[in-house]
Amino acid sequence: MMNLPSVSADSSSDDATRVQELKDLVRQFVDERNWQTFHNPKNLAMSLAIETGELLEHFQWLTLDEANAVKDDAAKKHAAGEELADCLAYVIAIANSMEIDLSQTLRAKMIRNAEKYPVGEC
Amino acid sequence: MMNLPSVSADSSSDDATRVQELKDLVRQFVDERNWQTFHNPKNLAMSLAIETGELLEHFQWLTLDEANAVKDDAAKKHAAGEELADCLAYVIAIANSMEIDLSQTLRAKMIRNAEKYPVGEC
Amino acid sequence: MMNLPSVSADSSSDDATRVQELKDLVRQFVDERNWQTFHNPKNLAMSLAIETGELLEHFQWLTLDEANAVKDDAAKKHAAGEELADCLAYVIAIANSMEIDLSQTLRAKMIRNAEKYPVGEC
Amino acid sequence: MMNLPSVSADSSSDDATRVQELKDLVRQFVDERNWQTFHNPKNLAMSLAIETGELLEHFQWLTLDEANAVKDDAAKKHAAGEELADCLAYVIAIANSMEIDLSQTLRAKMIRNAEKYPVGEC
Repeated sequence: MMNLPSVSADSSSDDATRVQELKDLVRQFVDERNWQTFHNPKNLAMSLAIETGELLEHFQWLTLDEANAVKDDAAKKHAAGEELADCLAYVIAIANSMEIDLSQTLRAKMIRNAEKYPVGEC
Repeated sequence: MMNLPSVSADSSSDDATRVQELKDLVRQFVDERNWQTFHNPKNLAMSLAIETGELLEHFQWLTLDEANAVKDDAAKKHAAGEELADCLAYVIAIANSMEIDLSQTLRAKMIRNAEKYPVGEC
Repeated sequence: MMNLPSVSADSSSDDATRVQELKDLVRQFVDERNWQTFHNPKNLAMSLAIETGELLEHFQWLTLDEANAVKDDAAKKHAAGEELADCLAYVIAIANSMEIDLSQTLRAKMIRNAEKYPVGEC
Repeated sequence: MMNLPSVSADSSSDDATRVQELKDLVRQFVDERNWQTFHNPKNLAMSLAIETGELLEHFQWLTLDEANAVKDDAAKKHAAGEELADCLAYVIAIANSMEIDLSQTLRAKMIRNAEKYPVGEC
């Protein structure tokens, strides 16, 4: 018998979800399967590349206009969204594995990016 | 004169940050630079592949033990964390561009993943 | 009725095959399907990332020793080899699309790489 | 003092170069640096993903028309060509490491691809 993640009944939106909740969801999934050994950051970074490749497939032969229109086709949007979710899952798994706070790290990096690409000069 | 993102003074952790706040941070960064035209999902998925490549560089020639130890070296952890932040930024940018709720999509995908890899059978 | 590439009966090895023959094989495949419009270098570089992702799957969760041993298992070697062939096909398709001589470009790049990594210093 | 690869004076084109010559060039480069241990297929597949990411950078924000025109700008063509050469070098390094005949494997895969995408049906 299969154990669904206990948070599976939760359908809270991005407005109502703290980043830590998503980290806990991914960690629980890994722990329940005893995959901690496999969740080495080298393996996980490779996994992110694999999932990114699967996301790329949804835009591979499209023009830029066609790519923009994917979001207006419910089935295509859903399919691309599933690949994006897998990418996010591995970003989170890497953060879990390396004990990285994503919110703090992203905010700090965006400041550096803002210095690199000043408003009005790019 | 450079405008830092207005949330730059915020150093809230994953425990205190809603996913939407990170989406707003990335959206503001893009809007301030008038990059909306470039933020086509095809371009952004390519960008995620580029940043994932930069993350991979931090583990390229390491053994799995050495990869696990990156998190124990502050400078190496910081450097890898910056690349991970760029990966997350593009995941979020794709979600912004395609109007995808990351929390709902990730939860739904984890249920499907749980069905694919039942506990105790993998 | 399907037209196989006319060179399909050829089983010459790397010792007996000029690079141009492989370029011609890929070009003929594309021309027969009228795919020239899709074979834009942006699309093709994305395609290389996708196929590289599929190659990575064959090593994703393996230790380095296990990865080395893939070549000793005929079925696994064959499966990984097919993904490597797809990667090569897209490298060649990019060269065809951009009119790049792979042999001259690789030789020139290896000289630059040799300057960057001098023998005895790395 | 640096040893350039002995074939460095060779500027033969794709018409005059056998695939094995390029394999020998890459193998010699690796052997001279005693990099055989690092040239594990897992590491090398990661390396191909990294170099593919660097190739993608040359097309990241371009329209398809702009991407097609890269080949008409000598400096841009040269820069993209160097990244393509690094991708090819890693494809070859993987073949060397796994003892794969690229010509035979590519021909066999193109027959399978032709069966998957019959002429006149795609």
